[in-house]
Amino acid sequence: MTHTASTDGRYDVLAKACPTRQVVNRIGDRWSLLVLYALEGGTLRFQELRRAVEGVSQKMLTQTLRLLEREGLVSREVFASVPPHVEYSLTPLGRSLSGRIAGIREWAYANMPGIEAARRDFDAR
Amino acid sequence: MTHTASTDGRYDVLAKACPTRQVVNRIGDRWSLLVLYALEGGTLRFQELRRAVEGVSQKMLTQTLRLLEREGLVSREVFASVPPHVEYSLTPLGRSLSGRIAGIREWAYANMPGIEAARRDFDAR
Repeated sequence: MTHTASTDGRYDVLAKACPTRQVVNRIGDRWSLLVLYALEGGTLRFQELRRAVEGVSQKMLTQTLRLLEREGLVSREVFASVPPHVEYSLTPLGRSLSGRIAGIREWAYANMPGIEAARRDFDAR
Repeated sequence: MTHTASTDGRYDVLAKACPTRQVVNRIGDRWSLLVLYALEGGTLRFQELRRAVEGVSQKMLTQTLRLLEREGLVSREVFASVPPHVEYSLTPLGRSLSGRIAGIREWAYANMPGIEAARRDFDAR
């Protein structure tokens, strides 16, 4: 069997120990994807993000933002206002990923009828 | 705040009830992504897939394949050989998604040094 390795042969996302595997695990997480989508339009405060990503809990959002910040995809800025508030934005690295993951969303929008037909077929079997 | 809606305004992946949300949840799953990557090179038997996707358990692989089959992304063919064997391939729909998610892997390969630097900075804070 074959699968595409990196062009320089150093990375292989299918290998457990490859550092890129952790990155794909991070992106391959429903909340991370949705938070990155929500930040595409620009900076948001925590509560705005929570409203934008319907269904995310405060705990999951906090955890997801922290992990995205650690990977350098999201930046967090604290404003010493009264009351203080925190804003989240995509970093340049996050923005470079943003274009790639937008393709998945567009694919889902374009192929939803085919996917729904497949589900009906599968469930009828 | 703004986020990109579908071109026809019918779908919104950030809305909890949108059918595309389920699709993104499916793709936004580490094992789904890795199984789709593994099948990019062609048809594989179950045990080949299990070896290709390092670290996946038999149970998780079975469950992931079933869900990908339901979404119409992977096809499953049973051969009545002795012993019988089962082969998995990308469907045309799965193949159309494959190009989009390949971009994420290539992005991870290209940006790994920046991500590792971000992690070191974050952990040093």
